[in-house]
Amino acid sequence: MLASVQIPLSMLVVFASAKLLSELFERFGQPGIVGEILAGILIGPHVLGWMAPNEILDILSDLGVMFLLFRVGLEVKASQLVKVGGTALLVAVAGVVLPFLCGWGISALWGEPELESIFTGAAMVATSVGITAQVLAGRGLLRTRAAGVILAAAVVDDVLGLIVLAVVSGLARGAANYVDIGLTGLLAMGFVFLLAKFGTRTVKHVVPRVRSRLNLPEGDFAIAMTLLFALSLLAVYAGVAAIIGAFLAGMALSESAEPRLQDMTSGVSELLVPFFLAGIGLHFDLSAFATASTLGLAGLIVLAAAASKFVGCGLGAAGMGRTDAVRVGVGMVPRGEVGMVVAQIGLNMGVIAHSVYGIIVFMSVATTLIAPPLLKLAFRQATRAEEEIVARLG
Amino acid sequence: MLASVQIPLSMLVVFASAKLLSELFERFGQPGIVGEILAGILIGPHVLGWMAPNEILDILSDLGVMFLLFRVGLEVKASQLVKVGGTALLVAVAGVVLPFLCGWGISALWGEPELESIFTGAAMVATSVGITAQVLAGRGLLRTRAAGVILAAAVVDDVLGLIVLAVVSGLARGAANYVDIGLTGLLAMGFVFLLAKFGTRTVKHVVPRVRSRLNLPEGDFAIAMTLLFALSLLAVYAGVAAIIGAFLAGMALSESAEPRLQDMTSGVSELLVPFFLAGIGLHFDLSAFATASTLGLAGLIVLAAAASKFVGCGLGAAGMGRTDAVRVGVGMVPRGEVGMVVAQIGLNMGVIAHSVYGIIVFMSVATTLIAPPLLKLAFRQATRAEEEIVARLG
Repeated sequence: MLASVQIPLSMLVVFASAKLLSELFERFGQPGIVGEILAGILIGPHVLGWMAPNEILDILSDLGVMFLLFRVGLEVKASQLVKVGGTALLVAVAGVVLPFLCGWGISALWGEPELESIFTGAAMVATSVGITAQVLAGRGLLRTRAAGVILAAAVVDDVLGLIVLAVVSGLARGAANYVDIGLTGLLAMGFVFLLAKFGTRTVKHVVPRVRSRLNLPEGDFAIAMTLLFALSLLAVYAGVAAIIGAFLAGMALSESAEPRLQDMTSGVSELLVPFFLAGIGLHFDLSAFATASTLGLAGLIVLAAAASKFVGCGLGAAGMGRTDAVRVGVGMVPRGEVGMVVAQIGLNMGVIAHSVYGIIVFMSVATTLIAPPLLKLAFRQATRAEEEIVARLG
Repeated sequence: MLASVQIPLSMLVVFASAKLLSELFERFGQPGIVGEILAGILIGPHVLGWMAPNEILDILSDLGVMFLLFRVGLEVKASQLVKVGGTALLVAVAGVVLPFLCGWGISALWGEPELESIFTGAAMVATSVGITAQVLAGRGLLRTRAAGVILAAAVVDDVLGLIVLAVVSGLARGAANYVDIGLTGLLAMGFVFLLAKFGTRTVKHVVPRVRSRLNLPEGDFAIAMTLLFALSLLAVYAGVAAIIGAFLAGMALSESAEPRLQDMTSGVSELLVPFFLAGIGLHFDLSAFATASTLGLAGLIVLAAAASKFVGCGLGAAGMGRTDAVRVGVGMVPRGEVGMVVAQIGLNMGVIAHSVYGIIVFMSVATTLIAPPLLKLAFRQATRAEEEIVARLG
């Protein structure tokens, strides 16, 4: 008796509609993930109005993307990423510089104020790797070479995004403290580098010893969760996203994880990921597009966001050949929740107008929606041949 | 970048300390579950002060107990409960009447106001089946006869608790509307009866048909979660606890659930249940015990709460023989979160004083802490022989 209605109601409406639209999309050969995001838009405040974003859903969404990246990390070996490190660095840098310049330039040419234009550029920088990772994981393609480059580049991209945001926020406050920003960047890079380099080895050495001494039932799972939360927290303290820590935690465990741990983790992520995906849709706000002028700018920004990331990252990956370069370019397109967070900060600092905030959110959702079908296309041609290679190597 | 520190911090501190104390308790042959509750008290505001209850933890705790009961339901067959229905009814009724009279009587003899005494009695009524279910599930004893009676009685107990609370709140408002209360009780009983009676058969008939037509990956899990949320929500609408709906959803699925669904569900519950257990400890408030008088009353109430439930339920189960009657009596002792909710309502209505609220919370936590070791004892003697019977029958 007495229990609040809010938790089961929110969960039922969001989960069931996400899965229903996912089923419809799969039935017509489209990526289910797009259906889950659209479900959020559909039930959200601007269409059917069945559900508004609330604290429960936001928490489940944050946990969802954390577990999504953790599960992806579990399927990726650190050595696989280190091998493609050089290419990933090129991809990440080109994929940050080009979108930033594009966003800034278009917004400035459109006549927006200087600082607002710079913020728009900054919001176009960060790739949200969750969407691509979910598509590739669903199709068993995480161990392809292109997937390795995308994942490694997304990690670097997050560090670069952190630096760009620090600089831009500094400018908005009147003066950027470049020493502080340099230190922040160094800390973030140090965290990622140390974990990627030594994480797996340390875990392989330490975890079995701890585990063998535990009397706890499901000790494996308890250790994995503790590592996940600890590295997510450390990542936030180091200045990068919690999900980067979650990804690195998964990767560190990837060589010692038992199948049972994989099954239990996929239970958690199957439950929570729909809240992340539908949550993107729930936060989608159409009210910003009151005038034809903002609509035009929004269209232009979406095109520029997709094209600049595709071209920048594609060029960075040119050394891998045309097929893989296209895959990497497409895989880096979704901005997901990260662009929205930048826009939120700009809004809170009073630097960007509500209409520009709306445009950035629109860009984030739109780039996230177009990526999965394009990814499906980009990975179609060579899928069968490559899966065999992966199977032989794995 | 930018992600809030609160989610990973809360999760790390609560999860890791719960598991650490659970490990310590298991190492010394004590039930890990007691360690997890004590971890909540230890890190909570009144001892170390590392963590205060917050919205994230409360949501995870609510989800935790929901998944705990769902998983327990998955291991229980409806026919097992229906078979012991008569005994369970006796156990539940005697286990409601005796604690209510005891709580009321002691409080009144101690000189508390009439209405406050009645509320104290009402808060002593409801058994929190989560704790006992967790102990029995952990030891593979859910299919014993005593476990069946405990689970069925806990469901009936929840309906009776609902009626008692409705009457008591009505009295507090000045007049109880007995027609409304009767209808509420009937609705709750109808919901439970229909689901227990026809749930399994319907699910067995419908779910495989739906599943076979789904293109969705992990369609089994999606169906199970939708059923879980839908029945939890319906339970709340019918007036009983969401966890009763969760339990009935699990039971309805128990005959058609694949092992993979079990593994995925146990991943979710392994993650979330520690937040439920430590959450009980986190809400433990020592500040109410300022005077020796309240301390005396608190001790008396705890003793009465444990003894009256044990005697009432034990007498109800007397027909099963002494061993099983003791097991049932002990299994019904924990009050967990349910007593706290009743106390909270009384506090909000201005009917009970803060000191009485503190006493009820103390009683809830104390009865929850003493049950697991007693359960271990009660189930020790015959465990081996019975496990064989269960294995042969299962």
